[in-house]
Amino acid sequence: MPTAPPTAVLGAGSWGTALAISLARAGHPARLWARREEAAAEIARTRRNEAYLPGADVPRTVEVSSDLEAVVGGAAVWVVAVPSQSVRAVVAPLAGRIENETVIVSVAKGIETDTLLTTSAVLRDVLPAADAGRVGVLYGPSHAEEVAQERPTSVVAALPDPDTAAFVQDLFMTPSLRVYTNPDVVGVEVGGSVKNVMAVAAGMSDGLDLGDNAKAALVTRGLAEITRLGLALGADAHTFAGLAGLGDLVVTCFSRHSRNRAFGERVGRGETRAEALGHSTMVVEGVQTTASVRALARRHGVEMPITEAVWSILFDGLAPRDAVEALMTRSAAPETDPARGPAFDGTAA
Amino acid sequence: MPTAPPTAVLGAGSWGTALAISLARAGHPARLWARREEAAAEIARTRRNEAYLPGADVPRTVEVSSDLEAVVGGAAVWVVAVPSQSVRAVVAPLAGRIENETVIVSVAKGIETDTLLTTSAVLRDVLPAADAGRVGVLYGPSHAEEVAQERPTSVVAALPDPDTAAFVQDLFMTPSLRVYTNPDVVGVEVGGSVKNVMAVAAGMSDGLDLGDNAKAALVTRGLAEITRLGLALGADAHTFAGLAGLGDLVVTCFSRHSRNRAFGERVGRGETRAEALGHSTMVVEGVQTTASVRALARRHGVEMPITEAVWSILFDGLAPRDAVEALMTRSAAPETDPARGPAFDGTAA
Repeated sequence: MPTAPPTAVLGAGSWGTALAISLARAGHPARLWARREEAAAEIARTRRNEAYLPGADVPRTVEVSSDLEAVVGGAAVWVVAVPSQSVRAVVAPLAGRIENETVIVSVAKGIETDTLLTTSAVLRDVLPAADAGRVGVLYGPSHAEEVAQERPTSVVAALPDPDTAAFVQDLFMTPSLRVYTNPDVVGVEVGGSVKNVMAVAAGMSDGLDLGDNAKAALVTRGLAEITRLGLALGADAHTFAGLAGLGDLVVTCFSRHSRNRAFGERVGRGETRAEALGHSTMVVEGVQTTASVRALARRHGVEMPITEAVWSILFDGLAPRDAVEALMTRSAAPETDPARGPAFDGTAA
Repeated sequence: MPTAPPTAVLGAGSWGTALAISLARAGHPARLWARREEAAAEIARTRRNEAYLPGADVPRTVEVSSDLEAVVGGAAVWVVAVPSQSVRAVVAPLAGRIENETVIVSVAKGIETDTLLTTSAVLRDVLPAADAGRVGVLYGPSHAEEVAQERPTSVVAALPDPDTAAFVQDLFMTPSLRVYTNPDVVGVEVGGSVKNVMAVAAGMSDGLDLGDNAKAALVTRGLAEITRLGLALGADAHTFAGLAGLGDLVVTCFSRHSRNRAFGERVGRGETRAEALGHSTMVVEGVQTTASVRALARRHGVEMPITEAVWSILFDGLAPRDAVEALMTRSAAPETDPARGPAFDGTAA
């Protein structure tokens, strides 16, 4: 039996590394691109990526390289696993490498700050030769550490072309990684990206020690905000009650693994944005996403009070406790108030 | 200014005690009924309820008594805070004490096992003289410990009559306890009751150490189940995206305070139902609710695989790990599959 064409995972952070490991374990040829040559050499030699995914073994079948052109050469699927604000710069040079059949799946979660585009939109923009039906995302509640440990995980493959979505579903499916499909690409992208803003808010709530009741109310209002923005962008409301909406929001707001939540907790405890970011070399997507989501919400006239509060804390010096006061003391209202925006405003207030 | 008529809180468990304390702090006359005379005397003397709400001071203005008739005498509002399976027995003897204006609010969360009625339906059944528009519930993500500590908490007052709902909203509102209104009484009751089944399942997931990704998927599918049942009972879908749906589900699945989650965790670790129940004198609503929700789902032809799995583990000897296997290995499907039931089946599988 001829070997299937390889899958190229672009980005050797925790999630890119975990997906390459998962593909290899499932018997699929996989390549992993690391930006820095030393990092690629280290992973290839030690079969570990201690900086980003400590303790996980990288199978020998995973080809690791810092040569981007070589990594995508002949690959049937590109998995874009770099920080969302780096997607354009990393992928643009590969525009000439696109073939008719190339499938491109982004696992980067965020909104490009300059253009306010989701990552699949950025990919369509920089890869005009790509078949738009084959460009999408793989999102959901999936902390890399747990996927590497083969703990049960469920994600969503969102691509416009149904056959391509089914192909991506089969490619990533393993006994511990369940893959569902959803044609609502923008909905899945909004859910997976904006949840990082809510994770920062949830972390602030933890840092202020507000308790579980407050965080549950925050998550509820957060999903209402995410849903309102998604609907304004043409998403299907049902997507936000699914894995890429509720599921990803819940895991990132409550998990100890969440970098965005941990960052918010430090800010809640009084650290500045810069101080809180200084604790990790990993990108905290929620910071830039807060700025782009706020701009997107204002452009579309969507009310997003939590996002506004997080933005004011991170970029305008508002004290976290004052922001909470402001959110808590808004006049109480009927739980579902049409004046507060469309469906799911579970706690309009 | 004449004193307003008192609010009678029936049940001196953790939630009943916390609500009586909250009412008293807000300056409202409150009475607290404890079933056992010794318990009432102890609370009245020590101004503490160490058995159910350790560390919280019960204001002297709270009248504590085990004389049920005396407690409801002249009270404008009855707050029913006894275990859901005890509501009928406790309230039935008071049928003759109902006055035209009496407002009855249940904070008991569950479905009566014999009749499969929600608690407000039980109240309407045993109190035929009550104005049905003034009978409802006060539900939401509200662990008693945190309400007693005056941490920010948001709940939903669901009563058919809008003026009565607004009255209840004003009565319970404090700077730390936000009250929203929602006319969808059955939706709020289904959300608040069935979430305890999902909390047991989430605890089992914790006991099996499945990780945060798995629990997020469980919560997502759990809300889909809750919503399907609610829609079959005539609820408004939006209610399940609100505080009594998503909010209460999230807090009970992730909070260390949740008795239902803690019970499930023990079962997940291998204890039998009886062994796991033996750790606390407090009622674990999720156990009986699992049996009644399963029966209700079957009566209405609603697919509830998580509830079925929890029932099989608690009442039919299925091993928790085998149940997880069964849930995880169902064939993957489109994320929103019409054949799997109505809206919100975020992860039909």
